[in-house]
Amino acid sequence: MSNLTILYHFAFHPGSRTARLALGEARIEFSEELVKPWEDDCPLHRLNPAGMPPVLTVADRGKILTLCEADAILGWIEDRAKGDVLMPGDLFERAEVRRLTTWFNRRFIDDVDAVLLHERMEKPLLRLGPPEARMLREGREALKVHLAMLEGLAASREWLAGRRLSQADLIAAGHLSVLDYFGEIAWASYPSLKTWYSKLKSRPCFRSLLSDRFPGVQPASWYTDLDF
Amino acid sequence: MSNLTILYHFAFHPGSRTARLALGEARIEFSEELVKPWEDDCPLHRLNPAGMPPVLTVADRGKILTLCEADAILGWIEDRAKGDVLMPGDLFERAEVRRLTTWFNRRFIDDVDAVLLHERMEKPLLRLGPPEARMLREGREALKVHLAMLEGLAASREWLAGRRLSQADLIAAGHLSVLDYFGEIAWASYPSLKTWYSKLKSRPCFRSLLSDRFPGVQPASWYTDLDF
Repeated sequence: MSNLTILYHFAFHPGSRTARLALGEARIEFSEELVKPWEDDCPLHRLNPAGMPPVLTVADRGKILTLCEADAILGWIEDRAKGDVLMPGDLFERAEVRRLTTWFNRRFIDDVDAVLLHERMEKPLLRLGPPEARMLREGREALKVHLAMLEGLAASREWLAGRRLSQADLIAAGHLSVLDYFGEIAWASYPSLKTWYSKLKSRPCFRSLLSDRFPGVQPASWYTDLDF
Repeated sequence: MSNLTILYHFAFHPGSRTARLALGEARIEFSEELVKPWEDDCPLHRLNPAGMPPVLTVADRGKILTLCEADAILGWIEDRAKGDVLMPGDLFERAEVRRLTTWFNRRFIDDVDAVLLHERMEKPLLRLGPPEARMLREGREALKVHLAMLEGLAASREWLAGRRLSQADLIAAGHLSVLDYFGEIAWASYPSLKTWYSKLKSRPCFRSLLSDRFPGVQPASWYTDLDF
């Protein structure tokens, strides 16, 4: 079974990291296939019409189930268990998980990833030239606003959406862990968020993320440190 | 109960339309509060930190449950019924619903809404000047690519994600119905999609959308016609 469960992912893509964390939390074994979505012969192009990672393929009653992108993988993890794995039981907390999912899927990607990760990650990968100072500044200012919002949540709750670890934490960790690798998070300014992140970082699901290395860029000195 | 179930929405916002369609399909009674998200005193600002419609408030055991944006409302409709209302039972079709949801939430919004609806809808509302011909052209070209993809789905399936009407149909209809109001869809080129849309348009949930009017713009001549 586990040999047929394959995650096609790019190690520094936030949604790909969310999928790895979620499969780890749900204790689902999987093989990994590292992909480069920007290359013409990338297997993603035949698996997902949108051409994006992560994609999980799973054998199901003699057929292959192809789960395209993080939301489909997260949804399948819930469906498969016929119960709440990474979703709280409480209706109010479920609403909060979904609000935060929308926040990350639109606002965080538009304001931060599409600016700051584009400059620091996509440009070197796609050989688009050096980062632009103005864009770096803009992305960092936007990141501060989002981190302040998340600090408020982490200060008042055990996990981002409430009393238990949920999809919202793993979605947030997918984005923040990539930014952290590039040294973009000044944790000292966000003490509650730092505590939240350190709890997540200590979980077994997180281990493989800490050994990822981006070509030509060493991780921030505290990236792999559990007591950062 | 129904008096306390209030949908805050903007009539020409695609996600707001999806929420209205979904509540209608699920036969949930609600009051409506029309909002203008771009105005400073819009009630959305205290309901949803992202400031976006749709928001549904629901009384639940003496507290108010605030559901921010379409995904939270769609998720709550499933939770509330403890069964499949707008989600298929089949795992393959559920995966397909979620793939299409991601497609619309990122690709369609980025390629089409943010370009074509920005020029035709947001600019007049926010008094940002006349539309730019280049942007209209770009948005219309992108729309053609998406409509061709949807035509392929509609030609091979009863509904977009498979054998039954699902969230995917209502998300697609939210976007396409706004574009249709503005006369942007050349239905004759997409015969299977046209059949799909005409099935949806005939459903009771669709009726209120057909009476929406945008200030200063008459709907396309076929907009309200069930046999267009």
